[in-house]
Amino acid sequence: MKVGYVGLGIMGSAMAMNIRRTGFEMVVWNRTAARCDALRAMGASLASSPEQVAGACDVVCINVTDTPDVEAILFGENGIEAGAHPGLVVVDHSTISPDATRAFAKRLRAKGVELLDAPVSGGDVGAKNGTLSVMVGGEASALERVRPVLNAVGKSILHMGPSGTGQATKAANQIAVLVTLMGVCEAMEFARTSGIDATRLLDALGAGSAASWQLQQLGPRIASGDFSPGFMIDLAVKDLRMVSSSAESNDLELRGLQQALAYLERVQQQGGGRLGTQAMAKALVCDCGAG
Amino acid sequence: MKVGYVGLGIMGSAMAMNIRRTGFEMVVWNRTAARCDALRAMGASLASSPEQVAGACDVVCINVTDTPDVEAILFGENGIEAGAHPGLVVVDHSTISPDATRAFAKRLRAKGVELLDAPVSGGDVGAKNGTLSVMVGGEASALERVRPVLNAVGKSILHMGPSGTGQATKAANQIAVLVTLMGVCEAMEFARTSGIDATRLLDALGAGSAASWQLQQLGPRIASGDFSPGFMIDLAVKDLRMVSSSAESNDLELRGLQQALAYLERVQQQGGGRLGTQAMAKALVCDCGAG
Repeated sequence: MKVGYVGLGIMGSAMAMNIRRTGFEMVVWNRTAARCDALRAMGASLASSPEQVAGACDVVCINVTDTPDVEAILFGENGIEAGAHPGLVVVDHSTISPDATRAFAKRLRAKGVELLDAPVSGGDVGAKNGTLSVMVGGEASALERVRPVLNAVGKSILHMGPSGTGQATKAANQIAVLVTLMGVCEAMEFARTSGIDATRLLDALGAGSAASWQLQQLGPRIASGDFSPGFMIDLAVKDLRMVSSSAESNDLELRGLQQALAYLERVQQQGGGRLGTQAMAKALVCDCGAG
Repeated sequence: MKVGYVGLGIMGSAMAMNIRRTGFEMVVWNRTAARCDALRAMGASLASSPEQVAGACDVVCINVTDTPDVEAILFGENGIEAGAHPGLVVVDHSTISPDATRAFAKRLRAKGVELLDAPVSGGDVGAKNGTLSVMVGGEASALERVRPVLNAVGKSILHMGPSGTGQATKAANQIAVLVTLMGVCEAMEFARTSGIDATRLLDALGAGSAASWQLQQLGPRIASGDFSPGFMIDLAVKDLRMVSSSAESNDLELRGLQQALAYLERVQQQGGGRLGTQAMAKALVCDCGAG
């Protein structure tokens, strides 16, 4: 099985390298060609377009930022559709709209191509270590064909249901993550204005029903003023805007999510878009004029 | 050291029994006297008022519902203040306003009495097993005197700072707990409207950065429609109203908390006040007209 990889950012590079290390023949393409150098040194070939990648491979993985990027790579000039052959499986690791995903899958199916939506969680560390969680939507038979490739990048490969359900699961994940983070930020800010030592607070809260990954991992960073990114605010805002609009199209109003988004947008407007999501805490400080 | 106990509800009874089992002499009082029977059978004496409890004991624990209840027991007719002697330590396990706590402590200090605010987390199970977390505000020396009593009820006794900081820590805990729960409810409702199996969703989310005690413990109950109370909505609403007003007095607006409160109030208005907090999920279903 020959594997193509399109989109070699921080996540994509690390994941593609893990696939190559497992021994798969690979063909890669990236808008900025220089980012392909490391994989070429590991024996991957360089293609001149996504179209060429699709023509040469049995499975093509995509890892880009947003819905329009995926659309351009699939259906734009020299895109995957142009080079596609029946039986090709496209695995989209990007976090994009579930609704757009369903439309893309339908359009590709007309060419005999299966699209799996397969967004991941676990961050750059999970990508490097091959321990990502992969949430897959689409045909189960297509998933089984590409599972050996996914096993190289993730420790948990969950089939969630038909096309779009991988993206919807990732969306639900982002809701839980960022609303939980809002609770952590509000709890810490309330305690701060009450004169409570932040480390002692985290000890008290981490022992019981307030415990969460967000509290445990990001609470200490908020306490020490470390706003370096694990997951960047610009990307969180992109995700939550997409989720919010997807929820609206289901007639669902998620007011907690909307408030978390409003906090993040405030930090972004103040120039903090490239900080980690824990900088949401800065939005609250501003509320009371203390920052 | 002779221990008094005032307020023998579900939490208070279980905690008082653990203290008695450790071997302390005890004097108890409850508004409904019949609730004292079990402790009398264990050898505790019955007092006719909080005043009498205070007169007979070195330390008095209080465990009631709300700020006005604590105020009445401390300063009402036949209250603790009336029977107090210098050196008495009052330990208030109720979850009440940090600001009121500071005022109560000041008033008692004029009589040579130390008030420790010592709200707990860990629920009825923690109360029965003596494994509560106790968050203590007030004089460190008073805490050291009563620590043997607190060791009988809790596995973690944390001194948070001066008077009111125990209550403020509990308040911060409730913010984190209920805003996190809101994230869980919104994530699950989004997934439900996207056609995703709830159990599979919980598997996918529990493995990564969306993980939380609320997701792990209450997610499966939401999925199966089990709304029996661990922590009751009526009490959560009482707590969050108190926290919201305490935050306002610090010029702090906690919008995530306010939204969680609005969801809980909606379920309460629909007659769900005695359900567990996980019934917050019902507020979201109503938003989209599906429930």
